[in-house]
Amino acid sequence: MRMTGAEVRRAARSGELTTQTSGLAPGFLQANLVVVPADLAFEFMLFCRHNPQPCPLLDVTEPGGFVPFAVAPDADLRVDIPRYRVYQNGTLIDEPTDLMGWWRDDLVAFLLGCSFTFETALLDAKIPVRHIEQGRNVPMYRTNIACKPAGLFRGPMVVSMRPLTPRHADEAAAICTRFPLAHGAPIHRGDPRAIGIEDIDRPDFGDPVEIRPGEVPVFWACGVTPQAVAMSARPPLLLTHAPGHMFVTDVRDRELLDRWAI
Amino acid sequence: MRMTGAEVRRAARSGELTTQTSGLAPGFLQANLVVVPADLAFEFMLFCRHNPQPCPLLDVTEPGGFVPFAVAPDADLRVDIPRYRVYQNGTLIDEPTDLMGWWRDDLVAFLLGCSFTFETALLDAKIPVRHIEQGRNVPMYRTNIACKPAGLFRGPMVVSMRPLTPRHADEAAAICTRFPLAHGAPIHRGDPRAIGIEDIDRPDFGDPVEIRPGEVPVFWACGVTPQAVAMSARPPLLLTHAPGHMFVTDVRDRELLDRWAI
Repeated sequence: MRMTGAEVRRAARSGELTTQTSGLAPGFLQANLVVVPADLAFEFMLFCRHNPQPCPLLDVTEPGGFVPFAVAPDADLRVDIPRYRVYQNGTLIDEPTDLMGWWRDDLVAFLLGCSFTFETALLDAKIPVRHIEQGRNVPMYRTNIACKPAGLFRGPMVVSMRPLTPRHADEAAAICTRFPLAHGAPIHRGDPRAIGIEDIDRPDFGDPVEIRPGEVPVFWACGVTPQAVAMSARPPLLLTHAPGHMFVTDVRDRELLDRWAI
Repeated sequence: MRMTGAEVRRAARSGELTTQTSGLAPGFLQANLVVVPADLAFEFMLFCRHNPQPCPLLDVTEPGGFVPFAVAPDADLRVDIPRYRVYQNGTLIDEPTDLMGWWRDDLVAFLLGCSFTFETALLDAKIPVRHIEQGRNVPMYRTNIACKPAGLFRGPMVVSMRPLTPRHADEAAAICTRFPLAHGAPIHRGDPRAIGIEDIDRPDFGDPVEIRPGEVPVFWACGVTPQAVAMSARPPLLLTHAPGHMFVTDVRDRELLDRWAI
């Protein structure tokens, strides 16, 4: 049974759903969550503006606001994600299934685009996505590409990798260029060392995947970047979704085509 | 002699230029300036995000930063505008030719798109612009269209008006749609009362212009909106350019075509 975004959120809210959201509510836009105290919100928003490929901004709340009006006006960001992470001064201290014990009136929530959107578009175009075929998490790597800093927020871009034939890589680039709010076109293809990746078989996050003869690794800016950057800024409090446990919106992936803002 | 953006800024910096910038450095992007204390910067940036037609964001500095790296990396926003305005708690208290006496390390500068960009494009397309023909300031009006608020920042959209024949109005809409960072397509044409304007001959800002037989008034979201909204929020300190005395960038107007971010 295909669920809608609202149904996934309701299941998460009731506590019935505590697993990853990959493949749930196909066609509905999923999003990364980053929550910071209001006194860091300007710098984090500026960081996102400076680095739109890893940090495509879908929605931002006012201080204390937990409703993402642009993408899911009846949602509650404190309870509608299956699992969260809580960091104090950069240290992971909790992985709750809701944020009711952590929410404060001075918190600002940012929702950022996610690669699930373009993966759906790639599969629709019959372009194979290896980690999905292999039932793994996408491999992700820290690069030597510095994000443009803003205040406390600084650090390297994290990328995800999908092996493709050169022809599929061209097609994928043409498709992904049209999704600027879901990381856009790949930032690199070919030699991993050119962007500071020493061992393609040892990703920093996620799982390694097979690269077959005739395929090249293709790298996309990754939504883990803003989380890694926010963590390393060590704010007193930082709330995020748990990896793979995304916020599912009411927006359809296809509505993102060629859009730069929601 | 046609000046460049850098030449206009240099003339303003030296004190040689203290007049309006309309018509100076033709083809170079001009911008509105709004400066607020850092503790209001997040809410003001959110307001701009919520209201991209009146508030198209071209560049934002970090707290204390006075260099607009995206649009003029060798400029100094404190001295490169011919005349400024200084508001304390919403009251105009000074109109200096530089901000050196007012600048603080906690100030954040926002540069916002300006109608000069699309007026140049209209003139290039042989579409007459009445207030330029008549040597007047463009007429501007408060409307009954509420901007989407963000924190302290709230208020009606201000619009500018140019009378056009229906055919020119269609052509103008097609041109302006392609300049989302310069207010984009008109927001209304025809009956002024439909958007809360009682008397088209009595603009709230600027000068009235003649509307000839066969012409309709065409209304664009106006860059005075963010200034009016910022003023009515009565921040302890607010710095802006003086009306018509814009910041001239190094970017060419034509580079803005179809762009949503710089």
